[in-house]
Amino acid sequence: MTRWAGPWPTDGIAYGADYNPEQWPEEVWADDVALMRQAGVNLVSLGIFSWGQLEPAEGRFELGWLDRILDLLHEAGIGVDLATPSAAPPVWLHLAHPEMLPVDADGLRYTHGSRESWCVSSPVIREHATRIARVLAERYGHHPAVRMWHVSNELACHNGRCYCDVSAAAFREWLTRRYADVDALNLAWGTAFWGQRYASFEQILPPRRTTTIANPGQRLDFDRFSSDAFVDHLEAEAAVLREVTPHLPVTTNYMVMGDFHQIDYTATTPLVDLVSNDHYLWAEDPRGWAELAFSADRVRGLAGGDPWVLMEHSTSAVNWQPRNLAKEPGQMLRNSLQHVARGADGVLFFQWRQSRAGAEKYHSGMVPHAGADSDRFRAVVDLGATLGRLAEVRGSVVEKARVALLWDTQAWWATDLDAHPTVDLHYLDLARRLHGALLDAGVAVDVLPATSDLDGYRVVLVPTLYLAPPDLSDRLSAVVARGGHVLVSYFSGIVDEFDRVLLGGYPGAFRELLGVRVEEFAPLRENGSARLSDGTTGEVWTERLTADGAEVLATYTDGPAAGGPALTRRSAAGGGAAWYVSTRLDRPALAALVGRVVDAASVAPVVEQPGGLEVVRRTGAAGSWLFAINHTDADLPLQATGLDLVAGRMHHRGDLVPARGVVVLREGV
Amino acid sequence: MTRWAGPWPTDGIAYGADYNPEQWPEEVWADDVALMRQAGVNLVSLGIFSWGQLEPAEGRFELGWLDRILDLLHEAGIGVDLATPSAAPPVWLHLAHPEMLPVDADGLRYTHGSRESWCVSSPVIREHATRIARVLAERYGHHPAVRMWHVSNELACHNGRCYCDVSAAAFREWLTRRYADVDALNLAWGTAFWGQRYASFEQILPPRRTTTIANPGQRLDFDRFSSDAFVDHLEAEAAVLREVTPHLPVTTNYMVMGDFHQIDYTATTPLVDLVSNDHYLWAEDPRGWAELAFSADRVRGLAGGDPWVLMEHSTSAVNWQPRNLAKEPGQMLRNSLQHVARGADGVLFFQWRQSRAGAEKYHSGMVPHAGADSDRFRAVVDLGATLGRLAEVRGSVVEKARVALLWDTQAWWATDLDAHPTVDLHYLDLARRLHGALLDAGVAVDVLPATSDLDGYRVVLVPTLYLAPPDLSDRLSAVVARGGHVLVSYFSGIVDEFDRVLLGGYPGAFRELLGVRVEEFAPLRENGSARLSDGTTGEVWTERLTADGAEVLATYTDGPAAGGPALTRRSAAGGGAAWYVSTRLDRPALAALVGRVVDAASVAPVVEQPGGLEVVRRTGAAGSWLFAINHTDADLPLQATGLDLVAGRMHHRGDLVPARGVVVLREGV
Amino acid sequence: MTRWAGPWPTDGIAYGADYNPEQWPEEVWADDVALMRQAGVNLVSLGIFSWGQLEPAEGRFELGWLDRILDLLHEAGIGVDLATPSAAPPVWLHLAHPEMLPVDADGLRYTHGSRESWCVSSPVIREHATRIARVLAERYGHHPAVRMWHVSNELACHNGRCYCDVSAAAFREWLTRRYADVDALNLAWGTAFWGQRYASFEQILPPRRTTTIANPGQRLDFDRFSSDAFVDHLEAEAAVLREVTPHLPVTTNYMVMGDFHQIDYTATTPLVDLVSNDHYLWAEDPRGWAELAFSADRVRGLAGGDPWVLMEHSTSAVNWQPRNLAKEPGQMLRNSLQHVARGADGVLFFQWRQSRAGAEKYHSGMVPHAGADSDRFRAVVDLGATLGRLAEVRGSVVEKARVALLWDTQAWWATDLDAHPTVDLHYLDLARRLHGALLDAGVAVDVLPATSDLDGYRVVLVPTLYLAPPDLSDRLSAVVARGGHVLVSYFSGIVDEFDRVLLGGYPGAFRELLGVRVEEFAPLRENGSARLSDGTTGEVWTERLTADGAEVLATYTDGPAAGGPALTRRSAAGGGAAWYVSTRLDRPALAALVGRVVDAASVAPVVEQPGGLEVVRRTGAAGSWLFAINHTDADLPLQATGLDLVAGRMHHRGDLVPARGVVVLREGV
Repeated sequence: MTRWAGPWPTDGIAYGADYNPEQWPEEVWADDVALMRQAGVNLVSLGIFSWGQLEPAEGRFELGWLDRILDLLHEAGIGVDLATPSAAPPVWLHLAHPEMLPVDADGLRYTHGSRESWCVSSPVIREHATRIARVLAERYGHHPAVRMWHVSNELACHNGRCYCDVSAAAFREWLTRRYADVDALNLAWGTAFWGQRYASFEQILPPRRTTTIANPGQRLDFDRFSSDAFVDHLEAEAAVLREVTPHLPVTTNYMVMGDFHQIDYTATTPLVDLVSNDHYLWAEDPRGWAELAFSADRVRGLAGGDPWVLMEHSTSAVNWQPRNLAKEPGQMLRNSLQHVARGADGVLFFQWRQSRAGAEKYHSGMVPHAGADSDRFRAVVDLGATLGRLAEVRGSVVEKARVALLWDTQAWWATDLDAHPTVDLHYLDLARRLHGALLDAGVAVDVLPATSDLDGYRVVLVPTLYLAPPDLSDRLSAVVARGGHVLVSYFSGIVDEFDRVLLGGYPGAFRELLGVRVEEFAPLRENGSARLSDGTTGEVWTERLTADGAEVLATYTDGPAAGGPALTRRSAAGGGAAWYVSTRLDRPALAALVGRVVDAASVAPVVEQPGGLEVVRRTGAAGSWLFAINHTDADLPLQATGLDLVAGRMHHRGDLVPARGVVVLREGV
Repeated sequence: MTRWAGPWPTDGIAYGADYNPEQWPEEVWADDVALMRQAGVNLVSLGIFSWGQLEPAEGRFELGWLDRILDLLHEAGIGVDLATPSAAPPVWLHLAHPEMLPVDADGLRYTHGSRESWCVSSPVIREHATRIARVLAERYGHHPAVRMWHVSNELACHNGRCYCDVSAAAFREWLTRRYADVDALNLAWGTAFWGQRYASFEQILPPRRTTTIANPGQRLDFDRFSSDAFVDHLEAEAAVLREVTPHLPVTTNYMVMGDFHQIDYTATTPLVDLVSNDHYLWAEDPRGWAELAFSADRVRGLAGGDPWVLMEHSTSAVNWQPRNLAKEPGQMLRNSLQHVARGADGVLFFQWRQSRAGAEKYHSGMVPHAGADSDRFRAVVDLGATLGRLAEVRGSVVEKARVALLWDTQAWWATDLDAHPTVDLHYLDLARRLHGALLDAGVAVDVLPATSDLDGYRVVLVPTLYLAPPDLSDRLSAVVARGGHVLVSYFSGIVDEFDRVLLGGYPGAFRELLGVRVEEFAPLRENGSARLSDGTTGEVWTERLTADGAEVLATYTDGPAAGGPALTRRSAAGGGAAWYVSTRLDRPALAALVGRVVDAASVAPVVEQPGGLEVVRRTGAAGSWLFAINHTDADLPLQATGLDLVAGRMHHRGDLVPARGVVVLREGV
Repeated sequence: MTRWAGPWPTDGIAYGADYNPEQWPEEVWADDVALMRQAGVNLVSLGIFSWGQLEPAEGRFELGWLDRILDLLHEAGIGVDLATPSAAPPVWLHLAHPEMLPVDADGLRYTHGSRESWCVSSPVIREHATRIARVLAERYGHHPAVRMWHVSNELACHNGRCYCDVSAAAFREWLTRRYADVDALNLAWGTAFWGQRYASFEQILPPRRTTTIANPGQRLDFDRFSSDAFVDHLEAEAAVLREVTPHLPVTTNYMVMGDFHQIDYTATTPLVDLVSNDHYLWAEDPRGWAELAFSADRVRGLAGGDPWVLMEHSTSAVNWQPRNLAKEPGQMLRNSLQHVARGADGVLFFQWRQSRAGAEKYHSGMVPHAGADSDRFRAVVDLGATLGRLAEVRGSVVEKARVALLWDTQAWWATDLDAHPTVDLHYLDLARRLHGALLDAGVAVDVLPATSDLDGYRVVLVPTLYLAPPDLSDRLSAVVARGGHVLVSYFSGIVDEFDRVLLGGYPGAFRELLGVRVEEFAPLRENGSARLSDGTTGEVWTERLTADGAEVLATYTDGPAAGGPALTRRSAAGGGAAWYVSTRLDRPALAALVGRVVDAASVAPVVEQPGGLEVVRRTGAAGSWLFAINHTDADLPLQATGLDLVAGRMHHRGDLVPARGVVVLREGV
């Protein structure tokens, strides 16, 4: 991503929602606009699922309604993030081209009837998506309401992997480009195992259902191919928009949240002008706010630290979880300001008016089924006012952290492959726990793609990075050499880019860096644990390892690796060190370890704070702002001074942040 | 259903079973008939799965065996409920017409090899089922043994939804009849959501597998269409039988039990002369007897209060549950008399002689594998004798209750749709709990389709009627206006017939009636609960509501709706009231609430009784009979006097009903 | 199986692994051979998955690498068990004949991409598998390194049941041979039930997905047909090998372990010269060693008591379980010597060098990823040395036991059929528990196919033999008549070979033998239990039975069969008796019952021993050897004297076997 040089789509922080006026009679629209003004809405995403309304039959367009609503919004001073409608192709297109419907690994073809029912490798969707994008760009690209392009929607959300014959052919082309020689592929995939040797690229299939475990190299490359196909799709739509309307920024809404990892977003950031993200809490997770913080930090990492847009979240309940809990009073505000604190300069929702019909009618909106006379809408108005008071924050950036935490989508794919040592190891688990430990300690952290530049970081955390970028070991060594601290965990640096084990003792990529050599993985029984000599407890995983240059900080006192090292540190001349932890420490132990590493690196919290008070600083040309979000039921003191833009009054060092409340201090006043 | 004007198929209460002589060598038949006579059997269902025996090749009939068994039964004075054999088409028909096999939502076609392997929309089964029905009607319609027609078997049990192309075409025709204009359908289904707009009926599919949530309007209409298709099938077979044998009553065996709800039986009752039902206990349910009572009451509601036939239940274990517990000593008798108490004038079993081979050989029968020298067969003989002593009860009806409990199959379908607020809300759950509370209190209740006439009821209970008939609010208001009491629960009256939310605050259909307005649903976490100000506890569900005309009887003291109303009552001038409960009260609290409403309406129990003694009164021209079934391990006093037809001796007020025993008192003697 | 008259493939006990040199660059091979020599390896299985390497295109062979590695191994004195490569057909064969890929019961065809992706009824695989077998036999059959043939691999592991049209035709042919007349089939399958009568064999399908329960006779015959198809395949490959190389013994590696039961191995033993088996522990099972002992005894039973080869086990973790625990120190040795104790004269692993890539790279090997400088490889070297010291044991046999325990694959298939009394009854469960009780008591047991000769056994145990061979009752009666003791459990002898119930009271096959008559099965609720009058507890299952000639040893005091007999014994004149147990006794009660029966039969342990010390004796012309394996954490005394070949020192009566250790005593020294 090149940072967008043009103007931000809104004055102040963007505030609004997906807006689907086509779901309502036109007489509702005037009410919509009036309520939007009441709420302070300044940006809405329009047309995301409107293809069927815009082009009810091939080549026959019904655009009048879109003309009218754009004019209406413009008159009210509300900007538009106009969508290309490819997320929901019209029924006629599916019927004319049933071959564009995706096929699963069992060979079963989906039917139309929901959304995103297309194979990303299909030339049909490519042709028609770019065609309708051009129609919209040419007609609306200079409409004064339009501020921004929203390419498609949540790419790969429901159609992330397609196994059809068209996909198979595209996969073979992709493999041919990647390997050129089929024997290179044979070597990369280890096809000598189980006699899977290919004589030509033509013999290769996607990893469709087979009698037992599929080839892991094939699966990993299919993940890469599929992700690349979405990147190509994004690029094709964006190219049309840029050609016709170079003055408008382009975004596509990511899904950095929970367990979604169908796309390697690092490949998409060069293709968008602004990063935007959709984020939904897992409602039953009592630490959902910590997951939110982690996701927001991941988004900022993808955005290279620049401001980004929260394109969707929910005012209250969603509709797709087992139990769709309503948000508590104040929770919508806290969630929203958490995102802003971590770099969002826009806070939008799905959706403006809660649907009356259809698959998502029990998903909350800014205007609920009960109407504007409701606590929910009043909270929406309050949030709009609060964001208005925070307008000065826009354009500032989150203060660069001293701690970096690395993650990688390719490592995630590789970790998900079949037949690994234990089903209890989940890719993001340890990353989330490390992030949570830092969050509880008030220490700022940048969550970065593993390929990122590590300059300036005093601590680098490398949790379960099973497949590490080839140069990472060198970059980590450089961190240690300049006095920094690196913490690597179990099941990191195990394989090369083809999922082939780096031989000679694990972790092949980091043996030298860490001064350890693992002879054997020793995962634990279900719900098992192992004790360490420092009194802590490990879960899920242990290892039989030997220290080879590292100092042993703790050993296992029981379990399958009893007697051997559990936690080690290889210290370097300049005060730096490479730490290795070979088990999943329980929460207190992990917090203690993180504290020890952070202390060793002399990294301090943003401000001294008790647990449960989330504190983040944004800085800009005009000064700095300190966000403090209280996630507890107690009033908590904040050791900082400034004008609280939320309450509109001075906050002095030690003043309390109310239980479940938020302050945003303009510092240095 | 028009009440059958002709004679009841048997003298006294019908007693018997499905009889499958074709499974046995003919030398067994004489033994069968002798044992039937010993057991007091007077009616058997014959030929249910006999198509393959009757017509082993197209047009080639082997009817001699049926002639012989009918004669044999007739000689023994045993009546026959003759079945049309469409539940099990012969193999040759499947092979000649593989397109008649059903297809699931994934597009996979079933194969023949079990039973009911047909698409109900297939013209093939329609043609052949009516053809064989005519053959049987013409040949046997005047055989003196034949008393009744049994159309097919458990319609829709295994083939309730078919997604094949034939079904798709029939669905489109059905939709065309329903909506005439495709834009009416677009509006009804809310296809503007996710851009699913249809340009013509030809573009529509059944809700086959798609990439994510299907359109709920489409799913709901597909449920209606599928149910209607079975109604049409029933009508077609019945028409042939009525044409040829107008003197014989027609039935089809319903499956009012457990969670079966593939057919809206209210559409079938006009097509049958006698209502009959199959009922199987869920063996591991310790309150199975209460579920039985609820199901029997539902059947009586469908039968308009008239006598009905228990067409199948089991003498002991079934074979299709995870753990097929044998019935306890006495349980078969208690189960049977529960059904009779609640309106059954026939008690039949599946099946006469336990099969030696095939899929259901571990399903119990009247004659078990062990043979007639067995406790099971001796209990069967006892039951026959007991029913013989109850012959005078036949033709009486269950005393009309003062309390009505409403349910609706269409509401059930709608409640089952995807993406609702919580997976923990199950449609019949609250209805069963309310029925159980009344059962424990000894208060009689009529369980009625929600479209039923409510005249004469002092209390009407409306549990989770998510989709309510459009006129129900008026009918309930009339109940209140005449001094009656209505109790409505959470998640009732939410949507219109197209599953579109009634806007302005829930429950749109009943806001005015109840004087409440719900702003937001607030379902609870898994296994969560919320406390109420009256000391009770709610589970699964709460709501954020405001009273708007109603009195607040209890508020939430914690949970997501803390501080707001939980239980309300809007009182009317004449002493009537509309009560609203917004959470799933735990059992004691629900019992207390039901008691309070019933007391307010001055409704008394059938007789004063302790919990666990089920008491039901049937009344007729000749007097009244009080059934008392003791479901406990203690002897319990019954405060009524009469001649106990079971034991054949006088029972005086306060005499004990033995533990696990039954008395049936002829009252007024 | 005829006992192999030729020489054993190795001097001393065979030791080695699957060896897949084609996965590695040739420069690794020399290191392989050097390490093999260091480890004492004398036999490797070669070429199991090499078809794609040997014949990269149809008729184009690349055999040079195999020539070279055979020569290299021969030079090092390492024998070769050469495999036919049919387990992994090359990709080109799949692409040329997609019809050879298997199809599941839903009608979905698998794709190539893993292994064993073929329909066993396909003429394509038959033709090509025998063709390549001939190529290998002709080229390598007289190579001096080759000692043995390894036909295919783990037959039916992933492709045990195929439902394709080719299979359907083959199934019909098989049925035609079995029944000749379709009416015999109709009678056998009970097709009169649910009207499934067939007019010709052409109308029959495999038990593909149908709307509800499939015909059990059809399913059972399909299991038989499928097993027979693998037997035919084995026979076809073996015939080629025997024709070309009559001097070499033929084996195929069985999968007698865990729950695998796709093949009835009793039909394959006549086709192999040596029995071999693959065995993998279920790593999380704390009594995995007992399951190993049971499986090894089953293998010996199949081998007719003769020595057999452990063809595969693992040095440490496998890769296909949920949690692949590493083996504890010493566990690999204990596991290996357990197999040897129970008759194995070969101890091989999968695989020599742990794979770097592919689906099983996290499956341990003799040379781990860490390389030869590892505890794992050092333990491998130790094991080789230990086996070397045990060379004299080779050729001896396990001392014949006085107790026989019967099992039967056909009974297993029948027990697995649908719609049985409870899902909690699993076929091998009680057999394993009985074996475990004997193991804990130190009593030797032969685990035999139910068709085996019972001469010489004093005790015969018949656990849950639902479908018993027709002559078994007579053979058991003979045991009792000659003073022996027979213990039969619940759910034994219920059906005939067509899964038709033997009428008149269960267990039809054994009523007379046992003197009991069961009127009704009475399975228990989930996690339920029933108490017995002797203070013990039953689980899962009870029965309502009457003693009819038997003495009642204990009755039920509660539960569904309360008051009736639970445990009975019918004593015969000569001191013999037939015992019947109608519930699944808990572990202590089962141990007590087994002890009682064994005592009644005057059967003594191998040596007196405390629990946890596994003791087995092998005997031969040269003397006897006593194996004692300590599975506890305490040192345990062994009451025997001899030269411990493991430690190389004398062991005197009462000396301790170290915790987790093994001694092998040459007795009589």
